[in-house]
Amino acid sequence: MPATEAQMRATAKWQKEKTDEVRFRVPKGERIVIQAHAKAQGETTTAFIKRAIREAMERDNAAK
Amino acid sequence: MPATEAQMRATAKWQKEKTDEVRFRVPKGERIVIQAHAKAQGETTTAFIKRAIREAMERDNAAK
Repeated sequence: MPATEAQMRATAKWQKEKTDEVRFRVPKGERIVIQAHAKAQGETTTAFIKRAIREAMERDNAAK
Repeated sequence: MPATEAQMRATAKWQKEKTDEVRFRVPKGERIVIQAHAKAQGETTTAFIKRAIREAMERDNAAK
């Protein structure tokens, strides 16, 4: 069932209020490697990147 | 020295040709935590995220 215009507006409003967008650039071709890795792990790309960040923060903090 | 318009155009062209943008959304307030963590590690936010991804891919692949 396609989203109605009202649903899309509601989603955009929720995202703006409740979430932050993070952007970064990688060398051409690296994004697809990350996406393929996430898929092979059974994760979405966003879930994989968020896990990677969480684990790196935990390791960095444990190393202090 | 501020970038001239020609420099900004050249940078935009280079980014478009040579890099991919990766975007993801986090709960409100989490982006600033990631930025503060990267800064405390002496890294830019992009460098930290890219390191986190690289290390997670290495660990995932080693675990196979």
